[in-house]
Amino acid sequence: MSDSRDLVELSSRITSFAVAREWQKFHTPRNLVLALAGEVGELAAEFQWVEENEQLESDHLNRVSGEIADVAIYLIRLADVLGVDLGEVISRKIDQNEIRYPAENSRGSSAKYTAYE
Amino acid sequence: MSDSRDLVELSSRITSFAVAREWQKFHTPRNLVLALAGEVGELAAEFQWVEENEQLESDHLNRVSGEIADVAIYLIRLADVLGVDLGEVISRKIDQNEIRYPAENSRGSSAKYTAYE
Amino acid sequence: MSDSRDLVELSSRITSFAVAREWQKFHTPRNLVLALAGEVGELAAEFQWVEENEQLESDHLNRVSGEIADVAIYLIRLADVLGVDLGEVISRKIDQNEIRYPAENSRGSSAKYTAYE
Amino acid sequence: MSDSRDLVELSSRITSFAVAREWQKFHTPRNLVLALAGEVGELAAEFQWVEENEQLESDHLNRVSGEIADVAIYLIRLADVLGVDLGEVISRKIDQNEIRYPAENSRGSSAKYTAYE
Repeated sequence: MSDSRDLVELSSRITSFAVAREWQKFHTPRNLVLALAGEVGELAAEFQWVEENEQLESDHLNRVSGEIADVAIYLIRLADVLGVDLGEVISRKIDQNEIRYPAENSRGSSAKYTAYE
Repeated sequence: MSDSRDLVELSSRITSFAVAREWQKFHTPRNLVLALAGEVGELAAEFQWVEENEQLESDHLNRVSGEIADVAIYLIRLADVLGVDLGEVISRKIDQNEIRYPAENSRGSSAKYTAYE
Repeated sequence: MSDSRDLVELSSRITSFAVAREWQKFHTPRNLVLALAGEVGELAAEFQWVEENEQLESDHLNRVSGEIADVAIYLIRLADVLGVDLGEVISRKIDQNEIRYPAENSRGSSAKYTAYE
Repeated sequence: MSDSRDLVELSSRITSFAVAREWQKFHTPRNLVLALAGEVGELAAEFQWVEENEQLESDHLNRVSGEIADVAIYLIRLADVLGVDLGEVISRKIDQNEIRYPAENSRGSSAKYTAYE
């Protein structure tokens, strides 16, 4: 498997990047959450005037991809700083969602799981 | 390597989950961006009254981990729906940041790269 | 004019509310920004599965109104804590936008002002 | 009372601005919510590397004020488009919070009202 799909490998690169620049002192959980909110805002802004089923042009999709990467990088870094195993919590949450949203109850419905618990 | 660190594997599980519930129709890019903004808001709210260097209690950290997972799941799904290779764009962005922020210029500084380009 | 349309009056009520509960210590700028991001997330979530031109049902619109109020209250409080005159900065920004976006250039276009400056 | 503290007056100026540019078609609720999330992200980003009790420098405070105004303008516009009386819902929410958070129970505590209801 290539390194770029390996969350542990990506996290390790991001940590090394921060350490080489002595940025650990900036990477407190609250700072990273604010930075993450900032990047998600940039991502949201890319979609603010897009028509509902509009196909994004190539340049626009490239900008969106860059924003998605920025969000991901801060999220990976936040998990690392908090000592959270990101792949593990994602995997557990999918397990949990599979229980919360049985296919037969939730098919074709966007209702929150609390509606049929 | 375990499946939970493999972004392609995680993305594939998330897609199967959506397909089994016929949720593809809900998973338009704009819907997913709004959902992502919602989850990032829940994550931000977990930190709103936290003191700067406060250690999170175990219950609190579990809630935070759950929110991080929710953010990650919508981000992975968004990338998939847009046909973006998430691992690849993260990896490329790290490459780009390594060029934008040379260690010698940016050591110990939180200035944006545009400040020394 | 009724008090509820007066930003200074609303801000004064919100401050009194906080002071009576000794909440000033919680209302640092960063705490308020995180709280604001949390409320905007709740507002975004109300729209995540809404169809583009869907009319909101009465209950839904009430929830949305409550979220809008929560966002507004934290924003008014943030301005107050920073010593910013909210009405004044809004008014100045509208003045600025009128210059940035001349009606003849921007009619029917969602382009950012930097596109025709 | 000066116009700049009057929410109805501000909302009316913002509507006229949009109408003069034929922007009503862009100002759907979902577009405005995404734009609002974008502006809140810019506001959050202004605080991402700020120390907890740091006094903002004059230039920085001006940028923050501008972002606060941008958030306020989209929020006022969203309320208008939804037919929501912004001052009224803020005022009602303060009333509700006064009931939810009795001063004697909540003094000096950041617990959510659900903790002592």
